[in-house]
Amino acid sequence: MKSSFLSLITLSIFLTSCADETERASDSYQWVDDYRETADLLIEAALDDTNKEIMWDRLAYVTDYYPHRLSGSRMLEDAIDWMHDTMLEDGFENVYKQEVMVPHWVRGEESAVMHGPYDKEMRMLGLGSSVGTPPEGIRAEVMVVHSFEEFEERAGEAEGKIVLWNVPFTTYGETVQYRVRGASIASRAGAVASLLRSVAPFSMQTPHTGNIRYDDDVDPIPFAAITLEDSELIQRFIERGETIEVSLKMEAEMLPDALSHNVMGELRGREKPEEVVVIGGHIDSWDVGHGVMDDAGGVIATWEAVRLMKELGLQPRRTIRVVGWTNEENGVMGGRAYRDMVMENGSLELHQMAYEIDFGVFEPFGFGFSGTDEARRMLEPVLKLTEAIGVTELREGSSGTVDIGPLIREGVPGMGIDTDTERYFWYHHTDADTLDKLDKDDIAKVIAATAVMIYVVADMEERLPWAE
Amino acid sequence: MKSSFLSLITLSIFLTSCADETERASDSYQWVDDYRETADLLIEAALDDTNKEIMWDRLAYVTDYYPHRLSGSRMLEDAIDWMHDTMLEDGFENVYKQEVMVPHWVRGEESAVMHGPYDKEMRMLGLGSSVGTPPEGIRAEVMVVHSFEEFEERAGEAEGKIVLWNVPFTTYGETVQYRVRGASIASRAGAVASLLRSVAPFSMQTPHTGNIRYDDDVDPIPFAAITLEDSELIQRFIERGETIEVSLKMEAEMLPDALSHNVMGELRGREKPEEVVVIGGHIDSWDVGHGVMDDAGGVIATWEAVRLMKELGLQPRRTIRVVGWTNEENGVMGGRAYRDMVMENGSLELHQMAYEIDFGVFEPFGFGFSGTDEARRMLEPVLKLTEAIGVTELREGSSGTVDIGPLIREGVPGMGIDTDTERYFWYHHTDADTLDKLDKDDIAKVIAATAVMIYVVADMEERLPWAE
Repeated sequence: MKSSFLSLITLSIFLTSCADETERASDSYQWVDDYRETADLLIEAALDDTNKEIMWDRLAYVTDYYPHRLSGSRMLEDAIDWMHDTMLEDGFENVYKQEVMVPHWVRGEESAVMHGPYDKEMRMLGLGSSVGTPPEGIRAEVMVVHSFEEFEERAGEAEGKIVLWNVPFTTYGETVQYRVRGASIASRAGAVASLLRSVAPFSMQTPHTGNIRYDDDVDPIPFAAITLEDSELIQRFIERGETIEVSLKMEAEMLPDALSHNVMGELRGREKPEEVVVIGGHIDSWDVGHGVMDDAGGVIATWEAVRLMKELGLQPRRTIRVVGWTNEENGVMGGRAYRDMVMENGSLELHQMAYEIDFGVFEPFGFGFSGTDEARRMLEPVLKLTEAIGVTELREGSSGTVDIGPLIREGVPGMGIDTDTERYFWYHHTDADTLDKLDKDDIAKVIAATAVMIYVVADMEERLPWAE
Repeated sequence: MKSSFLSLITLSIFLTSCADETERASDSYQWVDDYRETADLLIEAALDDTNKEIMWDRLAYVTDYYPHRLSGSRMLEDAIDWMHDTMLEDGFENVYKQEVMVPHWVRGEESAVMHGPYDKEMRMLGLGSSVGTPPEGIRAEVMVVHSFEEFEERAGEAEGKIVLWNVPFTTYGETVQYRVRGASIASRAGAVASLLRSVAPFSMQTPHTGNIRYDDDVDPIPFAAITLEDSELIQRFIERGETIEVSLKMEAEMLPDALSHNVMGELRGREKPEEVVVIGGHIDSWDVGHGVMDDAGGVIATWEAVRLMKELGLQPRRTIRVVGWTNEENGVMGGRAYRDMVMENGSLELHQMAYEIDFGVFEPFGFGFSGTDEARRMLEPVLKLTEAIGVTELREGSSGTVDIGPLIREGVPGMGIDTDTERYFWYHHTDADTLDKLDKDDIAKVIAATAVMIYVVADMEERLPWAE
């Protein structure tokens, strides 16, 4: 079904291309000029002071009142209900909560004390999905390693110890492997628990949580993040010949799956309402900080982009569906459930594009695109409409698109926004992910760029070709 | 005594000036060229990799093993003893611990819980010298103000409340007034406790401690710092009409004064050993973080500058005395006791200059000078010797010179180093004041600049004129 559908699209693009060939030759970007006026209106609205305040107040409200939106929590469901009701007030159509069963991990009380030349209560955060310790805790000597390779060489020393992965940050993709795999590797060598130097390039005694995975063949051992500062301190003590022990106590446990929801609403298309551009962010967060940049900012910015279209009376050819996905942080069950829903109701093929913001709503400079080169080339002209606000790039590959990943893997063209993420991993999964880290004007630009791109994609005559 | 001594100096300068007038007219900076070779040797030694490691290892050692060097603590005295013994090992002369009685404030257990739409345990730090709460704590409604002026207008609302000073950082000098005076002002209006938005331009949920003062005519009320993030959160809730209460518990108390010490050692002068250039930093710190930039870095850098002279076999005309002052943070009893000692033994007038580093050992670009214009002009040529490492400015007024303040007020020329302090107040008085925040190469430059300046000042023929 999918391939025949794609063939039809390809054929239609081919025919359209032939018809337009002569005039396109002179300027293949000409068609977007028809969107200039609309784009300018959207940008003006996004940068308007009153709209900035509306957006900012919503972002502050949802993150102040429901800061810890971890899957399975009351705060998450309250935030979802608030988004549902507020979308209704905004006049969105088909406002809907899709039921999603999600993992329900709870942190409980936790602590880590270093025993060395003196005792030190360390800042720590148990890692998501970790098992807890026995009630009396685990006390053992610490073994510090800096890489998987070093651990492999020294695995014989790990028996009965707490393995500390003191791995300096390079890229998130590379360094996060120690969080994802660290506990399994340590357990396989007989370690009784594991500690992680938080995955971050900079720290002010800031532990970072995040999800982990236990391989099926290992005994799950408790796994917690400590700070960059304490990881280095422990290493220096050990290098001086000190024996360092840590007492780790974690009440963490995985409860039975809980009921959560994706929440969504639509601006119905004027000509092809059955075709959809789906956009959004994830409404869940970790249970520390306020999840402002990760990812209430993404939810609010995408939602606001469409609210502004409604306010301006703009109605593109296709439907734009705004989604707050649930459970991005520890399961991606929301993203999967959305894919399952649209596959089951036959509307997957009607998706023109999927767009997500989940890499910070800092100052934007471009977009990342996951799909065919052909589709990406079709969208390049849109940058003519956003260059005035400094958004000028359309690169291959998208960041912060975990929830739309299941759609992208089915072939749906996917997109994310590229912003100045210099400090993103300073705050990521910490209690410092709070409102003060963001800038109203930066978010307004994210909204402007999103509104322009999404309006054009929803309104353009052509269907974007899918990946095979 | 002082004024006749100064007249002699002035006369001697006058005579020297007359004698040299002709050759000086062509280039008044010429005399420093004689120091070029020595300066280059000192710079080379400071930037040498082996010396960098020695310096860094010492800084790491003293701050790792004795991180909380608060006046009255065992860790402070251990750090002082370590410095004493290590100076002896270095071959310093007249290594000496001067007894100093210091305030002995202890923090004890402490906590602050916000009660609003939900309860939140806030990061907090009791402020130095604050009284504690009753054992059951104090729970009261919060009143937020943003300035002394606003408080004055609304003082009638403060009775029975906890006053939160939510004052954004402008300069340290300006904003710190709320820490120093906030509790007294709130108490006078009937407040039962006070909270301070930490004095800092940036926060990652980072509370900052620091010393406070109670006016004599007020009932001392407990005073604690919370984070920028929580101060803003409370303010937003109150602006939305919520009633916010806080439960504050602090075991803080002031114990009887304790015995501490200034610790010092000398490189004796070759021609005028009775004349002294005194240099150093403060060896005490707060009881959070490791006090690395505030101020172990200043102690190590000044000490190292003199150790390098000894290593190179350099011996200036005058004595250089390296001091680790005690109790800078909450009393300045060390700086006062040093002044008292040199006044009592008649050596105050023999001080050529006092030099302190206590404003971070970040990348240096100049010096600040507290003294007469004439003295400052005499030292300007020295910048010719440090310009190769980017140290090119000699401005009026010195920063980070609290311990030598009592000397400066007696007329002694005073100097501090100017460095890139952009992040100084991110870490100041927090648990993030740790080794990782500093850079080996930056400190090496601080040492190089200090060594060159201090060597020349200790060796130059002329006495620097004092302030009246």
